[in-house]
Amino acid sequence: MSGLTNRRIVLASRPEGRPTPADFRIEDVAAPEPREGELLLKVLYLSLDPYMRGRMSAAKSYAPPVELGAVMVGGTVARVVRSRHPDYAEGDFVFSYSGWQSYALSKGEGLRKLDPAAAPLSTALGVLGMPGFTAYAGLLTIGRPQPGETVVVAAASGPVGATVGQLARIKGARAVGIAGGPEKCAYVRDTLGFDAVVDHRAPDFAERLKEACPKGVDVYFENVGGAVWDAVFPLFNEFARIPVCGLIAQYNSTGPFEGPDRLPIVMRDVLSKSLTLRGFIQREFVSQLPDFYRDMSAWIREGRVRYREDIVEGLDRAPEAFIGLLDGRNFGKLVVKVDESA
Amino acid sequence: MSGLTNRRIVLASRPEGRPTPADFRIEDVAAPEPREGELLLKVLYLSLDPYMRGRMSAAKSYAPPVELGAVMVGGTVARVVRSRHPDYAEGDFVFSYSGWQSYALSKGEGLRKLDPAAAPLSTALGVLGMPGFTAYAGLLTIGRPQPGETVVVAAASGPVGATVGQLARIKGARAVGIAGGPEKCAYVRDTLGFDAVVDHRAPDFAERLKEACPKGVDVYFENVGGAVWDAVFPLFNEFARIPVCGLIAQYNSTGPFEGPDRLPIVMRDVLSKSLTLRGFIQREFVSQLPDFYRDMSAWIREGRVRYREDIVEGLDRAPEAFIGLLDGRNFGKLVVKVDESA
Repeated sequence: MSGLTNRRIVLASRPEGRPTPADFRIEDVAAPEPREGELLLKVLYLSLDPYMRGRMSAAKSYAPPVELGAVMVGGTVARVVRSRHPDYAEGDFVFSYSGWQSYALSKGEGLRKLDPAAAPLSTALGVLGMPGFTAYAGLLTIGRPQPGETVVVAAASGPVGATVGQLARIKGARAVGIAGGPEKCAYVRDTLGFDAVVDHRAPDFAERLKEACPKGVDVYFENVGGAVWDAVFPLFNEFARIPVCGLIAQYNSTGPFEGPDRLPIVMRDVLSKSLTLRGFIQREFVSQLPDFYRDMSAWIREGRVRYREDIVEGLDRAPEAFIGLLDGRNFGKLVVKVDESA
Repeated sequence: MSGLTNRRIVLASRPEGRPTPADFRIEDVAAPEPREGELLLKVLYLSLDPYMRGRMSAAKSYAPPVELGAVMVGGTVARVVRSRHPDYAEGDFVFSYSGWQSYALSKGEGLRKLDPAAAPLSTALGVLGMPGFTAYAGLLTIGRPQPGETVVVAAASGPVGATVGQLARIKGARAVGIAGGPEKCAYVRDTLGFDAVVDHRAPDFAERLKEACPKGVDVYFENVGGAVWDAVFPLFNEFARIPVCGLIAQYNSTGPFEGPDRLPIVMRDVLSKSLTLRGFIQREFVSQLPDFYRDMSAWIREGRVRYREDIVEGLDRAPEAFIGLLDGRNFGKLVVKVDESA
């Protein structure tokens, strides 16, 4: 044994609907000692993302569920604290999928070295990580915004939505964001520079969204579903593209879903407007990662892409922060600072 | 005036739900005399197609509705009977959009000359016309079947479905057809050579379809919707492609549609299986028409694509034949022989 204590958060029970703190359990166990070819990672930052809700359920999705009693999955930034692996030395910083824990053993698979001088380490979980790449690949490959077109994205102050809107503007399109509450809306409009922003909490939200899209909607980057979908749907132009990367509004719903049945109306418009609906997860586009790192780093340096992080201190607070994420309580990319010395 | 009598069928009323004969009205009027730059067409064959149901409703779609009192729209094969147009001579055969009538004036726009020696004239309305091209463009551009994949199509004895399945086999994929009743199923399997066929009237239809697709479904060419969609939907493989060219099962429904709401489940699978849903109409792909005429003519000559026509004699029978089409009572491409001498 390493003599170190690993604090970890495991899945205690599968939530029905909205998760509660009781669905998680904190455990302290001895951190393992790396054997030949292995290394021990100390987690500095843990990413919290909506997709994790899906992993808590037993239903088959694009990834297997987390087993009961197993450590919750998640992307992390970590420091190598012991290494018996030829490619990694003590003190190296890496991106890893170490999950909700303070130490993790690795054989080096799936790690990516990080240069702390190039960008703040935590950005490897956000704008220069999976959320940023989801926006980049989904918008540019599926959405393909053209100059003068209108791109709509919800959760516009979040790491995916913020990036989608800024990339839309870089491509010459008009970016319309949807966010919850005046503070987030002001940030989307004033700091991120979206052309328009609409508060989904407004009682006349659908009407305001329509006013914000006088030429209709050509690309809707779908990451929420629910009431936002209902407001955007009537605005689609012919040949609109709808990359679907998330449906956070329905992750806590178990179904069956009450009528009326909206599917026939959606299919009717898919046909009559020649719409494209395309689900994706970013790993399908992994061959674009080098382009992504090059383009996005440059856009950040040039000030053309901005980002915001919502950093929660301490692994123990991960469950409550994650539950808040599903309710939209975070403001910016939600990251847990696991190691207080980071 | 030309001295000729034009028999025409106009839209008398907009149907609520299923059309009835009373929604149509037969009129006899004087056929006009062409002026300089015009020509007079005698309609030989009229195509009846499901999309015409949409044009009978006031709702906006990809094409404007037929006005009340106006001639029903439709593709036709016609002979030039009088010409004051430099590009057309009396006796020429053309494809035109002359609609449900026996004579039509034309300025030459949208006409395509036909060679009666190259293929039977009526095929310009079916396998070598809009239905064949819908199958060709939708399957090859959106569906993109790969060798060994499974392609499912409904209305498999109809002009679009029959062509989809045969093209799927030409591309090395496995073709599974859905048709109504033993006679149509036998035709799809034995004459068209589909790998499997399932009767949608069977009480255990969904179970049989699943058995016919042991490796799941990679391409579903959607031209019907309704109960067939429900049976195909659970079978989609990751990255399945769903070209949507028709929804005949819901054309007569006015909505709202009773629950449960199927949309959240469809969106969940769009996301978790990275599905592509893509509506289209064939005119989007007009640049592929030369390839289509070349390829399809060759496949017909080689016996690799077969087709069947259901020819109804006499314009007066068009309304009842069209109503039967919406009920699936035709067997093959439904064509009205308007000129008995054709």
